[in-house]
Amino acid sequence: DYVVEESWRWAMAFFIGLSMGFCAFCVDVSLETLNSWKFGAVKRVIRERGGFWAPYVTFLSFCIVYSGVSGAIVSFIAPLAAGSGIPEIKTYLNGVHVKGLLGLRTLVFKLIGVVLSMAGGLIAGKEGPFIHAGGIVGGGWAGMGSMTLTELAKGRLQFRAPRKYGGYFRRQQEHRDFVSIGTAAGVSTAFAAPVGGLLLAIEEGSSFLSLGLFWRGFLATCTGVFTLHFLAQCHANFTGILSQKFGIWRDLGLYDDNLALYGKRYYYYVWELPVFVLMGCAAGLLGSLFIKLNIAATKMRARFVPPRKPWLRLLEVVVVAWVIATVFFLITYTSPCLKLPPPNQLKYFELGGSDQDIFSGVDDTDARGLKHFPRLWCGKDEFNPRGQLFFTPLVQAMRMIIHLGETVPEATDELVYRISAATLILWTVTVFFLMLLTFGIGAASGIFIPSLAVGGAWGRLVGMLVQACVRHAGSSMPISLPAYTVVGAAAMLGGVTRMTISITVLAMEGTAALQLIVPLMFAVFVAKMVGDSLAPSVYDVHIKIRGAPVLSGQEPRQRMVNDKLTVSELATTALVALPPIVLIRQLAETMRSCRHAAFPVTPDTKAAYQSDTAFALHGVIMRTQLLRMLKHRIGIIERLSPPTSNLDFLVSQEERLDLLGQLEQLPLKVRTEEQEGILQGLTNAELAMWLDLRPYMQRTPFVVQGNASLARAYRLFRTMGLHHLFVGTPKPQVIGVITRKVMSCSPQCSWHTAHMSFPLT
Amino acid sequence: DYVVEESWRWAMAFFIGLSMGFCAFCVDVSLETLNSWKFGAVKRVIRERGGFWAPYVTFLSFCIVYSGVSGAIVSFIAPLAAGSGIPEIKTYLNGVHVKGLLGLRTLVFKLIGVVLSMAGGLIAGKEGPFIHAGGIVGGGWAGMGSMTLTELAKGRLQFRAPRKYGGYFRRQQEHRDFVSIGTAAGVSTAFAAPVGGLLLAIEEGSSFLSLGLFWRGFLATCTGVFTLHFLAQCHANFTGILSQKFGIWRDLGLYDDNLALYGKRYYYYVWELPVFVLMGCAAGLLGSLFIKLNIAATKMRARFVPPRKPWLRLLEVVVVAWVIATVFFLITYTSPCLKLPPPNQLKYFELGGSDQDIFSGVDDTDARGLKHFPRLWCGKDEFNPRGQLFFTPLVQAMRMIIHLGETVPEATDELVYRISAATLILWTVTVFFLMLLTFGIGAASGIFIPSLAVGGAWGRLVGMLVQACVRHAGSSMPISLPAYTVVGAAAMLGGVTRMTISITVLAMEGTAALQLIVPLMFAVFVAKMVGDSLAPSVYDVHIKIRGAPVLSGQEPRQRMVNDKLTVSELATTALVALPPIVLIRQLAETMRSCRHAAFPVTPDTKAAYQSDTAFALHGVIMRTQLLRMLKHRIGIIERLSPPTSNLDFLVSQEERLDLLGQLEQLPLKVRTEEQEGILQGLTNAELAMWLDLRPYMQRTPFVVQGNASLARAYRLFRTMGLHHLFVGTPKPQVIGVITRKVMSCSPQCSWHTAHMSFPLT
Repeated sequence: DYVVEESWRWAMAFFIGLSMGFCAFCVDVSLETLNSWKFGAVKRVIRERGGFWAPYVTFLSFCIVYSGVSGAIVSFIAPLAAGSGIPEIKTYLNGVHVKGLLGLRTLVFKLIGVVLSMAGGLIAGKEGPFIHAGGIVGGGWAGMGSMTLTELAKGRLQFRAPRKYGGYFRRQQEHRDFVSIGTAAGVSTAFAAPVGGLLLAIEEGSSFLSLGLFWRGFLATCTGVFTLHFLAQCHANFTGILSQKFGIWRDLGLYDDNLALYGKRYYYYVWELPVFVLMGCAAGLLGSLFIKLNIAATKMRARFVPPRKPWLRLLEVVVVAWVIATVFFLITYTSPCLKLPPPNQLKYFELGGSDQDIFSGVDDTDARGLKHFPRLWCGKDEFNPRGQLFFTPLVQAMRMIIHLGETVPEATDELVYRISAATLILWTVTVFFLMLLTFGIGAASGIFIPSLAVGGAWGRLVGMLVQACVRHAGSSMPISLPAYTVVGAAAMLGGVTRMTISITVLAMEGTAALQLIVPLMFAVFVAKMVGDSLAPSVYDVHIKIRGAPVLSGQEPRQRMVNDKLTVSELATTALVALPPIVLIRQLAETMRSCRHAAFPVTPDTKAAYQSDTAFALHGVIMRTQLLRMLKHRIGIIERLSPPTSNLDFLVSQEERLDLLGQLEQLPLKVRTEEQEGILQGLTNAELAMWLDLRPYMQRTPFVVQGNASLARAYRLFRTMGLHHLFVGTPKPQVIGVITRKVMSCSPQCSWHTAHMSFPLT
Repeated sequence: DYVVEESWRWAMAFFIGLSMGFCAFCVDVSLETLNSWKFGAVKRVIRERGGFWAPYVTFLSFCIVYSGVSGAIVSFIAPLAAGSGIPEIKTYLNGVHVKGLLGLRTLVFKLIGVVLSMAGGLIAGKEGPFIHAGGIVGGGWAGMGSMTLTELAKGRLQFRAPRKYGGYFRRQQEHRDFVSIGTAAGVSTAFAAPVGGLLLAIEEGSSFLSLGLFWRGFLATCTGVFTLHFLAQCHANFTGILSQKFGIWRDLGLYDDNLALYGKRYYYYVWELPVFVLMGCAAGLLGSLFIKLNIAATKMRARFVPPRKPWLRLLEVVVVAWVIATVFFLITYTSPCLKLPPPNQLKYFELGGSDQDIFSGVDDTDARGLKHFPRLWCGKDEFNPRGQLFFTPLVQAMRMIIHLGETVPEATDELVYRISAATLILWTVTVFFLMLLTFGIGAASGIFIPSLAVGGAWGRLVGMLVQACVRHAGSSMPISLPAYTVVGAAAMLGGVTRMTISITVLAMEGTAALQLIVPLMFAVFVAKMVGDSLAPSVYDVHIKIRGAPVLSGQEPRQRMVNDKLTVSELATTALVALPPIVLIRQLAETMRSCRHAAFPVTPDTKAAYQSDTAFALHGVIMRTQLLRMLKHRIGIIERLSPPTSNLDFLVSQEERLDLLGQLEQLPLKVRTEEQEGILQGLTNAELAMWLDLRPYMQRTPFVVQGNASLARAYRLFRTMGLHHLFVGTPKPQVIGVITRKVMSCSPQCSWHTAHMSFPLT
């Protein structure tokens, strides 16, 4: 059975990857379609040196309709689909569940919502929502069932596979592991970066990492990325799939790897490292500024646009979409026109695969059919330079900032066409403030791509400045502007989210900047250090605002306190205990009289109520477990006199596991809100019966001695994912010891002889 | 104080990286020097179409002298410098210490030894030894001192920084963390791969991963790689350091990134994935074959060349070096001569940096000065094709197999000169068997590079076969042979070492094959699966042979057993306990009468001796701690009557920490072997005194209730790094509970109100 279970674990990881790859593909295709409708329609009404209003109205309608639907989904259908979902997932992985967070309904509307938000021009990325979506997919596979579907079917159909078909992993701990794998798969498919995604799940998610989880996570991320690439290439050219080269696409790449000359474009000099460190500082400052402003905005929002007023929230989304669309459109419209690069260069600039071609539908209106040099209102041999960034999807603009010109073989500075400093400054300022406006509104949206886009732009500006200084000093040393762009982008993301390793690796995988790992690392680390000293990360801020009890990594100050305090100083001694066999009437009263989530089980309930008396802990039982037992009439003993004498175990271990298994297969979890209904449903005869808790309680809850330091308790909570930790007497009664030597024996080896040698080592 | 400690932690990580970067640089330079002496001398005596003996004797003398010194170091000076050191480090990180493993002496001789082994032509790599070296460096920085130096100074000088200057991390747990960071830095600098090195430390090393460790490890690996690159570039061209491009070197690259066209060279088709999976199978089989043969060889070796006969061990090394040198030399000598590629192509082939130029000293004897096409005995426009692989260092041969020809811009199959299938077959077979001969002899040697070299060769052969099939089918589809080479190399390494993610990422970083992450992952995973079903990993085999009590990941079968057994079934109940204040004479007797490493402290020692009676556990004290107290006369109470009444705590928490701190600052750890000397040194008057254990014992040892499952105990052992786990009564006495909500409160928040609400969630 264990071998089968283990195989299921691996299969689950594979399926999670497969599902997320499929989701990512669907999102990409839908987004491409929606974008090509939008930009295609606008381009069709643009005339050379033509008017403003017709294109503007077309553009605006698309933006507002897309964003409006996205906002309506959050306001009226699935409130949990708002924002990025990372704070919620972090909270969940830390051990605190939010109802409905991992429902299929949330998944579907989150994905639809994020496509619409992005297509609607909001300053949003898909990465955060994909982390959330991945968590849902992971949780769904682990549970092998869906409460949403079961509820839709009104209980007539059970969407819940039995244990035989993989329903092994419904215990909270394991469920969490799969959610964690899912988040890894989610972010990997969003960025097409298997290693970075895995590291992100480690860095943000799991507080306890087992090697099995690490391996399965990697299987999931690689499967996900491969599935995505496979589907995308089938979509692009199904018949030629066998002769298409795989593995040559970067998610943040403008050209495929076979065309781009990454190795030639990325490098740094040793004297540039201090510059990169300063960029890290700047990113930390900017990120903290963003977070501070965001806190203020969130407070305003809570006051003026509370979630309980859905129409107001929707209105906010529409207004924001209107502002963004207008700003971007105006900037594009007022742009000067520039001459196109000479044809021999242009041919290199325009190399690239078809699936990034967002103007694919509009070749008829623009005979040139250029991708990277939009014509718009300009003349025949001209292009609109601001339109390169502002009249294109956000992620494509970021790719342009990093990569445009990579395929030009002669890479001297003078030859390569470059985005001008003025455009970059305009881009940095507008996108920074519009990102602030967007983050937190009632629509699905992530912050990764916007941060990268802002950071990349100012990073490139720094590079241009450095280049100017070098030129001014009379040197002709080539400076790698793409390197500055990538470092700036990663540092900015680090300043906002405060992740480090995962960002470094994501940036490296996404842009193929293998050469920049050291500068990336230093910049991102410094951004985190500077940022952390000014404000917590954007996710921690939102977790804190919601007040979820999350155990994050400890600050030094807190660790000191924890080392000095003992657990008994913090323990609650006013416990409500239950006897192992309890009269149902009494149980119902107890459950109504307090709101505790867990009840210790002991025959000596009086001692438990007294705060200064120790009692023997036989086990612990959760309130939800009790409700399930009462609802399904499980474990009820009919004889009316309490079995006084033998309070020890009646059933064997196997029978007990069997009973627990039965209970687990019962449909639908019970929620504490249903309590009153279930208690009301008990008949008088039943109230006079007894409930036998012994086979169902958790018999060995974690106990720590009262004089242990709080730091130890903290560590147990985090590594074991506990909700309750019982506090024992300071000097526990012990009868023996287990040594490492005994533990490291395999079952075949002579345990009984191992007993004899208490090892000296 | 905590803030200072935290800063030291980061500083330590930085210093570890710095030191390892420096070590790696020294090793590289020494190796280059020794190799250029060897190959230079041999080339000087080679004449066109000339004789065999003069070059052979020259070559042989160098090989035998180099290897002989390496063998002598292990046999006579530092036995722990033998082999790769990975099994030992794994054992240490798992919680079992081997004496002298982390000494400075071992570090120095290990590094010298590995340079000599590699220069002597043994089939060995530096990666394993670097992991060991990194562990030593990490441990040394954490302890801020060296026992080796202190011993050398015969106690006159203390090579041990006080707490003020960073001596914070001498507790076993933290020491282990830094050793773990050190291994990451070691492997990163060996491969110049910061991410892969970090992942390797996670995958192989730590059983408990904290986020802080993860970050510090990354800082260490990046610093290490940067230091190495910086020193190497300073060494190559010190005056031009400011204008040299950084970050463009791959450790397994033949050309720098600015020249190589990696993006063009690596790709795969979807139908090739099954081929890669089959290659994974083959690698798993071959790896297991290697391990099985190695087990047999190890047994033979233990019988005929035991470590206690150093001269015999040295002889073995010399014989092995002789065999390898002869085989390689014969193969080179008997090689046919081939025409050089046409000059226009040759110029691309010969592009490349200077620091890989192992023939740099010999331009005068070979006017052509070609690096990749050795002339040797051949004519003017010819080269020796087998010499390309067999007459060059192992790692350079591997680079040739993967990369030769990458810089040729027109990448059709016909243009690119390729190493012939016959040479590759010869290489695979000879290196496989010679690697078997080398691994396990008494010289420092690693198995990474040999495995990669073998796997790369047969991987390329598979690629050529696939190419032939495709051509046979009439298609002209280009096949990426470098992709097959890299996948084969990684899979073979996976088959031998059974690591997965780290190998995938190391291969990716080392060869810049960003495009191949999915095929690499599948091949390495399959290699692990197939291999694991046939034999344990080469490291686990050696750990098992040595019988160290290591808690590795559990197999399903064992997990099942652990779930069913309870801890009390395995616990040793025959404990030897000490009273809190013990008569020294009685203590000495107790310490002599048993070999236990730890003693529970309880006033009720009689109950402890009885196997069925529980007793109150006041604390636990280690034998080494007792010996230290006795040696330095600490904690001795002179009054002759035992303090009968108050067994509770006499000193406050702060005083206690102060006392412990004093004890910790005392020089030199005490070893259990010194016990008799210390006990003899006690005077009769002292024997009649009392020792107060209370301030020095560990007061809150881990206790688990007797009816908990063995699986729980296992988990505690692994995550908390325990050596002893006390087993309590099945139903522990508890007085209260701590909830997650309380734990997640920061100290500023109202803990006392949090007490009141036992949360419902």
